[in-house]
Formats: sequence, structure tokens, C-alpha cells
Amino acid sequence: MKPSKINFMEKFSKLPDEDYSVRIIAMMNNYEFKIVKFKGEFIWHSHSNTDETFIILDGKMLMNFRDKVIELSPGEMIVIPKGMEHKPASEKGYKALLIEPEGVPNTGDVDNEITMNKIEWI
Amino acid sequence: MKPSKINFMEKFSKLPDEDYSVRIIAMMNNYEFKIVKFKGEFIWHSHSNTDETFIILDGKMLMNFRDKVIELSPGEMIVIPKGMEHKPASEKGYKALLIEPEGVPNTGDVDNEITMNKIEWI
Repeated sequence: MKPSKINFMEKFSKLPDEDYSVRIIAMMNNYEFKIVKFKGEFIWHSHSNTDETFIILDGKMLMNFRDKVIELSPGEMIVIPKGMEHKPASEKGYKALLIEPEGVPNTGDVDNEITMNKIEWI
Repeated sequence: MKPSKINFMEKFSKLPDEDYSVRIIAMMNNYEFKIVKFKGEFIWHSHSNTDETFIILDGKMLMNFRDKVIELSPGEMIVIPKGMEHKPASEKGYKALLIEPEGVPNTGDVDNEITMNKIEWI
């Protein structure tokens, strides 16, 4: 593997013009770095086998938990503990970097119409 | 573990006033997220058992490899492949987020006066 730099906004500029889009941009060992943009209300879900990290790059994210809501802005991160139900939401949309082991389903233990079985590289 | 947000610049504001400082700010599974600020020339080293990720938050970093130099700015990241010699450098200093498995020595396979055997939380 040849090391090269990755520019987040350059990668975001290549995403399709949709409210929800996610692509892999890098790997470190068996962990994937993904860019995600999202606007709206995601679904309640959890990941029973892994923690999950969000680093906010643009916009505001409301991370809903069953007992509280945490608002995140650019320059902030949060680690969602393994097994904890959460639901990201954003009225105007956010851009974030997502870090988790390869192959983790976007909707965790829930399988519905927004579940992606394979996430592409960009 | 209770999830809470982590603000990078708030964490950096608590670092000692030194050219080189690194502290752990979060864990995801067995991976550590560390903030690092550095000014000067680091040493050539490699990590034989793991890749290592730098996300640049402030300033400019020159990541030296034996066959090239890559300049990194805020909003950019790089994954250093396992076993590849590298040397970070910065004339005016940079701030970055470092992601790697817990317990990885800062100077990799080299042991010298800047080697840290234990990195503290902040």
C-alpha cells in the first residue's frame, strides 16, 4: 500500500446529490474510515459487536439516545458504545467521518429499506 | 460507558505549553484516539504491528517517507502503513488526531529519549 493523503471535502464533492450517502475513503488495519452526509431522521439501531465513532466535519448532528440527546458540531466527536441504541438526526444536514471495523452494517441490528449490504469506495 | 461529546480544541487548550505533547481523549474498542501537537523534526521510526492514522486539525505537517514527502493540511488525513518508516515534521507546528491500537509506542520500533512508555488521558 502506498500512503497518500486524503482530503475530506474533495471526497465529499464526489458524493451523489442525495440526503444520505456514505462511502469508504480509507482503511487502517481492519477498520474503515467512511464519509457520510445525512439529512433527516435516521432509524433507532445499535451495533452489538462494536463501538462506532463519529467525527463531525460540517453542520449539526443530534445524536439521540434513549435517555438523552447530544448535539455535535464540527471539531467534535463521539464514540457510540457497543450495543447502545442511537439515532442520528439533522434538520439541515451534517457531514461526518465514521470509523468502525470493516463490514459493519449501517443500520446495525435492524434490517430495513435503508440497510446497505455493501458500501463502496470513493 | 456513558457516551459524551469530545471537543478537540477544548482538549488541546489543556495541553502543556511544549513543542511536543500527546494525550488520549477517547477509546473505540481497543483503539485509542489521541490529540498530538508537534513542532520540529520527529525521528525516523516505524510500527511493525499496526497502521497508524493522522487527521490534521491545525497547521501544516510534512510527513517524510524514505522516497517522498507529503504535505498535510487541516481537513486531510493519512494512513501510515504498518512497517513503513516515516518522520513527521513541522516548522511552525501542527495539531492532529492520532488513531491507533492502544499501547502503540510513539517512537515505534525505536527507543530513545522521546519515547513515552505511558500516555496519559486528558
